[in-house]
Amino acid sequence: MTERLVVIGGDATGMSAASQARRRRSADELEIVAFERGRHTSYSACGIPYWIGGDTTGDALIARTPDEHRAHDIDVRLATEAIEVDPAAGRVRTRDADGREEWTGYDHLVIATGAVPVRPSIPGIDADGVHGVQTLDDGEAVLHGLGGAGVRRAVVVGGGYIGVEMAEALLRHGLDVTLVDRAEQPMTTLDPDMGRLVRVALEGLGVRVVSGVTVSAVLTGDDGRVRAVATDEDEYPADIVVLGIGVRPGTELARAAGLPLGAHGGLLTDRAMRVPGTERIWAGGDCVEVLNLVSGALQHIALGTHANKHGRIIGTNIGGGYATFPGVVGTAVSKVCDVELARTGLLEAQARAAGLEFVTAVIESTTRAGYYPDAATMTVKMLAERGTGRLLGVQIIGREGAAKRVDIAAVALTAGMTVGQMVDLDLGYAPPFSPVWDPVLVAARKAADAVAADIRKS
Amino acid sequence: MTERLVVIGGDATGMSAASQARRRRSADELEIVAFERGRHTSYSACGIPYWIGGDTTGDALIARTPDEHRAHDIDVRLATEAIEVDPAAGRVRTRDADGREEWTGYDHLVIATGAVPVRPSIPGIDADGVHGVQTLDDGEAVLHGLGGAGVRRAVVVGGGYIGVEMAEALLRHGLDVTLVDRAEQPMTTLDPDMGRLVRVALEGLGVRVVSGVTVSAVLTGDDGRVRAVATDEDEYPADIVVLGIGVRPGTELARAAGLPLGAHGGLLTDRAMRVPGTERIWAGGDCVEVLNLVSGALQHIALGTHANKHGRIIGTNIGGGYATFPGVVGTAVSKVCDVELARTGLLEAQARAAGLEFVTAVIESTTRAGYYPDAATMTVKMLAERGTGRLLGVQIIGREGAAKRVDIAAVALTAGMTVGQMVDLDLGYAPPFSPVWDPVLVAARKAADAVAADIRKS
Repeated sequence: MTERLVVIGGDATGMSAASQARRRRSADELEIVAFERGRHTSYSACGIPYWIGGDTTGDALIARTPDEHRAHDIDVRLATEAIEVDPAAGRVRTRDADGREEWTGYDHLVIATGAVPVRPSIPGIDADGVHGVQTLDDGEAVLHGLGGAGVRRAVVVGGGYIGVEMAEALLRHGLDVTLVDRAEQPMTTLDPDMGRLVRVALEGLGVRVVSGVTVSAVLTGDDGRVRAVATDEDEYPADIVVLGIGVRPGTELARAAGLPLGAHGGLLTDRAMRVPGTERIWAGGDCVEVLNLVSGALQHIALGTHANKHGRIIGTNIGGGYATFPGVVGTAVSKVCDVELARTGLLEAQARAAGLEFVTAVIESTTRAGYYPDAATMTVKMLAERGTGRLLGVQIIGREGAAKRVDIAAVALTAGMTVGQMVDLDLGYAPPFSPVWDPVLVAARKAADAVAADIRKS
Repeated sequence: MTERLVVIGGDATGMSAASQARRRRSADELEIVAFERGRHTSYSACGIPYWIGGDTTGDALIARTPDEHRAHDIDVRLATEAIEVDPAAGRVRTRDADGREEWTGYDHLVIATGAVPVRPSIPGIDADGVHGVQTLDDGEAVLHGLGGAGVRRAVVVGGGYIGVEMAEALLRHGLDVTLVDRAEQPMTTLDPDMGRLVRVALEGLGVRVVSGVTVSAVLTGDDGRVRAVATDEDEYPADIVVLGIGVRPGTELARAAGLPLGAHGGLLTDRAMRVPGTERIWAGGDCVEVLNLVSGALQHIALGTHANKHGRIIGTNIGGGYATFPGVVGTAVSKVCDVELARTGLLEAQARAAGLEFVTAVIESTTRAGYYPDAATMTVKMLAERGTGRLLGVQIIGREGAAKRVDIAAVALTAGMTVGQMVDLDLGYAPPFSPVWDPVLVAARKAADAVAADIRKS
C-alpha cells in the first residue's frame, strides 16, 4: 500500500527530507507532497546578502527548482500555504493562491515551516522602502529598491549576522550606511569585548555604527516612502531600511495543532527529529529547538547547515533507515569585507546562564607564519571550565584564514576535550598556513595556564 | 646550589627547552649552556623554500638570535659541535671552530640534534651546484647559485614536501624545472591516487615530473660544476640541483653514547620526553621517534611544530613543572602555488602495515558555497576502519581554504571518533567559508555509508 508523506515548507529541511525519503522509497511505496507558500524551493537564504552585494545571482541560490524535485516524483505545490494541521485525523488543510482550501491526509508529516523575521510593531514598519532579508522575493525587492532614483542613504536595523552582512552589501552599492543596534556592541553572538572588534572593523569600512539605541519609529514622507529611522533621541535619514533584527521559530501552525513548543517558541523534537507525543510528525530546521551539547540547554538557532542535516535525518527515518541529531555546539562563522568572525560553544553570558564557572584567555597571533606574505593578525578568545579545564567556547576575529579555525574547537567541544588536551593537538603546520604554534594552540595553552592559576588561588 | 642544563642543538627543540626552563628557573638556580654547531639559533627551516622563492627574507626566518637568548642568560656557544656524550659521568665533549675540545658537565642534558638530509652515495653528489635545503647556510648557497650566470635549468631530486616546495620556488626564479622522483607519484605522504593530483598540479605549473626513476649519478663538467642528473635510462641537464630526498634522525652522538634508538634510527623517549634508562637526559624534535596515536607505532616525523612542542615540554619538566607529549596523528599541510595538500592519520599502506582493515571514500566538493565567488573544487579522501567505523585518516587536495580543514580530522582522530559521529559535527557554515555541507562532512557521510555497506556484505 502506498503511504503519503506531506511536507510543509519547501526549503532546506522540507526538501532534504523529501529527497532523502525518495532515495530510500520509490513512488510506488511513498507518495510525497510538498506545500510551499512561496514560489521557490531549496534555496539558500544565507546567500541573499551576497546576492544583494553583487557576489552572485538570485538564480544561483536555488539548489533545486520545483521542477527538479518533480522529476524525482515529489509533488511540489507552490503558492500553497498550510493553514491547519489536524494530528488526530492525520491531515493538513491548505489554501492555494486562488483561495481554494483543501484537506490532504498524511501517513508522515514533516513540519519545516522555518523562521519568521522579527518585525517590531512600531509606526511605519510596513512603509515602502523597509525590507526584510528572508526570502528570494525579499532579495529582489531590496535590489529593486536600490535601483530607485535618489537612493543613497541606508539604515540597517540590527547588528547580527544579517545586519553586518547587509551593511557590507549596501556599502558595495555605494550607499552611505548607518547600522542602528539595540546592543552595546554589534554581533551579540560574540562577547562584547570581541564584538567591539567587529565595530572597529565596520567603522573602518565606513559604516556609521549607532549602538545601544532602540528604534521607535520609521518616518515616512508624503509619498508614504521611508525617509528616516527614529530612535528616542535621534533621527537617521534613510532612503532604504533593511531589518536584520533576528528571527523567531515559525510555529503558529504547530502551536494551533497543540504540538509541544519549547521556551524559545520552537517545536520540540526527540533525537530522531520526531515531535514527542506523536507517531508520524517530524520537524526540523529553523522552526525547532536544538540541544546545545555544551550548556545542556535547548536553543533556537536558524542556520542552513542544521536545517539540511535535520532534513536528511528525517528523510532517512521516514525512508526506513535510522539517523539521529545529537545536538549542536553553537558554531557560526561570518565575515565583514575581509574581517572574519567565528564562534563556537558558549559566550560568557551563556556559560553563566548554564550555571558554569569559567576562566578566559585572549591571545593575538597570526593566520600564517609571521614571515610569510599576508600573515594577518587574529584574536582568539577561549573559555574553559574552572577546575576541570573543559573547553566551553571559542571566539575568533581576524583576517583571511582565521574563521574556519573555529572548527578545531567545534570538534574538541563535541569530544569533551579539556584545554590542556588541546595544547597537544597535532594541527596542520606549514608557513603558508600557520605559525609553528597554531593560534588555537596558543589560546589553549594560555587557557590551561589560567585554569591552573585559578585552582592554585582557590 | 646552581644546576647546569646543557643543550645540544640551538634550533626549535633545544632553544624552546632552554627558554622554557629559564622562564621557570632563574640563572641563580639553573645555568644554561647551549651548543650549536652552526651560526644561527631558533630559525624556521620550513621557511627556507619560501625565502628562496622570494616570499620572505633569511633574517625573517630567525625567531630568536643568539644574542636575544643570551639576554635571557642562556649561554649560546655557536660553531661548537658536541662530539661525545658521556652519560655515566654526566658530561659532553665539544669542539669549537678552532678545533679546541672541552668537556662540560651537566645536571640535565637536552639532545636536540635534529635531522640530517639523506644524501645518496652516488658519483658527483658533492659537486659544485648540488644543494641541500636544511640550514640557513644552505638557503644562502642556493640563492647565490641562482644568481650565477647561465643558470636556467634546475633539477629537483625527490618529490616530497621540500621537493615540491623547491620546485615552485625555482619556477619563480624563471628556471626550467625538472622534478626527478623514485616514487610512482610525487608526495608519498599521500596515497598514490591523491599524489596523482599533485603531479597534475605540478605539470600544470610547467614542472616536468619524472617519476619512478632512481638517480644514479650527478654529472659534472670540466669545471667540476654540475651539468646534469643521470638516471639509469636518461640524463637531465641541470645548472643547479636541489636535493629533497628526505631526512633521517641525527643520532650518531646518541648512538655512540649507547642511548636507545628505535627502528627508524630516532632516539626513544618516554611521554615526558626523557630518554628511557636515563635520569637526566631529554630528547625531542627531529632526532626522536614519536608515537602515532592512530597506528600505535613509532614514527620519525621531522616537523617544526612537533619540535617546538617537545622543547616546551622538556623545558617545563626540567623547570620543575610537568608536561607530556601524547603523540601525533600525522598531520601535515603544504602547497604548490595555489594547490593545497593536507593529510592526517594513516595512508592506505600505513593502515595495512598497522594491521588495520579499512574502507575508503573519496568525494569532490567546493571550499565555499558553489554560488560564492572563488568557490574552488577540493577532493577529500577518508579512511575508516572496517566494522567500527573509526576514522583512520584523511587526505585533502584543493585550492585556497582546503588544506587547513584537515584539522577537523586531526581533532576527530585524537578523540577517536567514528566517521558516523563526524557526520553530525557542528562545523562553521556561511557561504564565503563552506557549502552548507562542509566537504569533510560529505566525506564522512560517504565513508559511513561505505562502512555500513561493508558490514552488510561481510
